[in-house]
Amino acid sequence: MKSVLEIAECARTAALSLAEAPSERKNSALKKIAAALRAESSAIIAANAKDMAKAEESGLSKAMLERLSLNAAKIEAMAKGVEQVAELPDPVGEILGEWTRPNGLNIQKVRVPIGVIGIIYESRPNVTIDCAALCLKSGNAAILRGGSESFLSNKALAEVISKSLGESGLNPDCVQMIPTSDRSALGELLKLDKYVNCIIPRGGEGLIRYVVANSTIPVIKHYKGVCTVYVDKDADFRKADILAIDSKCQRPGVCNAAENLIVHRDIAESYLPEIGKLLSERGVELCAAENAKKILDAAGIPCAAAADEDFYAEYLDLKISVDIADSAEAAAAFINKYGSGHSDLIVTENSETAESFMRAVDSSTVYWNASTRFTDGFEFGMGAEIGISTDKLHARGPMGLAELCSYKYKVRGDGQTRGKPAFD
Amino acid sequence: MKSVLEIAECARTAALSLAEAPSERKNSALKKIAAALRAESSAIIAANAKDMAKAEESGLSKAMLERLSLNAAKIEAMAKGVEQVAELPDPVGEILGEWTRPNGLNIQKVRVPIGVIGIIYESRPNVTIDCAALCLKSGNAAILRGGSESFLSNKALAEVISKSLGESGLNPDCVQMIPTSDRSALGELLKLDKYVNCIIPRGGEGLIRYVVANSTIPVIKHYKGVCTVYVDKDADFRKADILAIDSKCQRPGVCNAAENLIVHRDIAESYLPEIGKLLSERGVELCAAENAKKILDAAGIPCAAAADEDFYAEYLDLKISVDIADSAEAAAAFINKYGSGHSDLIVTENSETAESFMRAVDSSTVYWNASTRFTDGFEFGMGAEIGISTDKLHARGPMGLAELCSYKYKVRGDGQTRGKPAFD
Repeated sequence: MKSVLEIAECARTAALSLAEAPSERKNSALKKIAAALRAESSAIIAANAKDMAKAEESGLSKAMLERLSLNAAKIEAMAKGVEQVAELPDPVGEILGEWTRPNGLNIQKVRVPIGVIGIIYESRPNVTIDCAALCLKSGNAAILRGGSESFLSNKALAEVISKSLGESGLNPDCVQMIPTSDRSALGELLKLDKYVNCIIPRGGEGLIRYVVANSTIPVIKHYKGVCTVYVDKDADFRKADILAIDSKCQRPGVCNAAENLIVHRDIAESYLPEIGKLLSERGVELCAAENAKKILDAAGIPCAAAADEDFYAEYLDLKISVDIADSAEAAAAFINKYGSGHSDLIVTENSETAESFMRAVDSSTVYWNASTRFTDGFEFGMGAEIGISTDKLHARGPMGLAELCSYKYKVRGDGQTRGKPAFD
Repeated sequence: MKSVLEIAECARTAALSLAEAPSERKNSALKKIAAALRAESSAIIAANAKDMAKAEESGLSKAMLERLSLNAAKIEAMAKGVEQVAELPDPVGEILGEWTRPNGLNIQKVRVPIGVIGIIYESRPNVTIDCAALCLKSGNAAILRGGSESFLSNKALAEVISKSLGESGLNPDCVQMIPTSDRSALGELLKLDKYVNCIIPRGGEGLIRYVVANSTIPVIKHYKGVCTVYVDKDADFRKADILAIDSKCQRPGVCNAAENLIVHRDIAESYLPEIGKLLSERGVELCAAENAKKILDAAGIPCAAAADEDFYAEYLDLKISVDIADSAEAAAAFINKYGSGHSDLIVTENSETAESFMRAVDSSTVYWNASTRFTDGFEFGMGAEIGISTDKLHARGPMGLAELCSYKYKVRGDGQTRGKPAFD
């Protein structure tokens, strides 16, 4: 069994050759992975059954068990996902800029892979395949470190990948798994900045904070998604209804679902009862600040009292915090204070207010009259995503293949020197 | 005196308004800073004299004292630098991409400031002004934390900046200094990821490693510059002489100076004595691996024996490590092993070899027939630089104003929902 250090060294070697691999070879490997997933479906499901048995014994929650479980349909979906990645254009080698300096130096900025990417994730085994496919396509070697509960499932999936890589003439070390779920192995990996160029943690805030606090390798992440819907005084209320309902209810357990609803002061009396009723009818629990609560109470809409910390909360559930803002500027200030910089929405028919709100809100994505649920690589047209970043360095918002790349400068000259040449 | 936490909170507030400040206001502040530097020149020099006296007492090296000292000419150069930054185009607000999705959503990717940037640096007080100017122009609030030896000089410079900001109608908290040189204050700053978006450390490798190990805020950095000149078998030797001499000798104390010289096996017998003699004559100490040493010894060129670790060394001095490579591929592998991913050069007249070398070398900048000394924001045409990154996330190579920015997505819709709309 390789040590974590050996895995990282092998990944660096694999990354250097993968960076130069032609698109066809990478695509052929992806197609082989998809085929092997289908061929090995029963073996993968058998490995998953062992994980499931152990997880049930250890009392994992029903939601977690559902995330962990694999079946033929889920494996087919993975295989299709990998084939879709194969169809996407190769981001590597694109010339991002080119210019010639007065001294004749030609400077070319070329997109290249990041190198070695460590993916740290929790229970869902499909992350193994999704991330491996995206890293491979973008020319990056991947080191995968999944959760202990999905260890055998991940191992089975990693074996499928390794075998397919070898058959395609790629180094099997392009995708490796940390062969233990021991946390000390993770701690060791996070210090190997000599070999690993980037860490992407996917999971709960606790895991991500652990990774950030312990990593000397740059991390791309989002801690949580606290998204706000702001209904302006100039909103089309039917549009506001539709957008608030979609942002909150369409899939409440995800990071781009709304957690806060803010309504302009001038329309609070009339609109809060309307939207409060619609959300309540859909099973959404309301939790309102004092002034908003008075209005909702008066209208007979069930609603709890919100404390200040409730506006920082990521419920991931049918629950929303409600408040009133004095202006669109005040709503933007609210979002910049309580939000997580993920996705926020203004509903208004006033374009001046909308533009000013979109400038003022310091989030990865600011919506005007569209649901917050669109923050997603597929919905943005990137074809796929490895995650969403609320960081402001490197990538912000949905991260597709281009965001899994770096660049380098190629500078072509004819003997140019910075000082006077030693000989003329 | 503000606490570190209060400084960070104030910086966040200042950053949000600075992000929306028009170019004219930022430029006017920069011009006021330049004028104030000139007007307050004697006061700044007086403050610096106190730092110098203390530094001399504490036995700081001559090189460090020279870096620390300010005089009228250095202050004039700072003022000119700030005026040049004012003349550069404003990077903020540029539309980096725009597309419309089949559902009618219009997605715009817009360049915005990063937010709050912490600059951690050592003795040179001019960094205070350079970094403040670049952060200001790119719309970022800066928190400056200089070294203890330049504390009073930095304080005097920071006062000039604050006063000029106020006079230009900008929040003086756009540029703040940590009012103590206590290391615990630095430790505290590095954990304030809620308010600070990016840390840029500038200084020795020890300082930078401390920052990376202790920061929960993303860091952009380069640890060191170990740059290699590779002379290929198809090189024009006169060009190789000129480029090796410029890369090594033009300014040996900087990160883009060459530290390693590699020569192709086929030409080692003829070329090593030639370049060895030329470098020796210029005071360069040679340190060669066994096979290279044999050839240099036979030619009577003074040369020490190199150990493996010498090829990782950043001499920052008139000293170079020398070795022989079996091929251009082997030279690239040497660089990917020993180099620091900064700037590397192939000298060859063979374009196929050059292109393949530029693909294989995993460095921020790869040169073909031009000196490694060109890796620099001004030389690249960026107008200025805040530093050089050997990271692969966010910015790689010289970092100008654009690299001090992030982006956000503005998404404009007309009621689009991810799910079926609640009402039709």
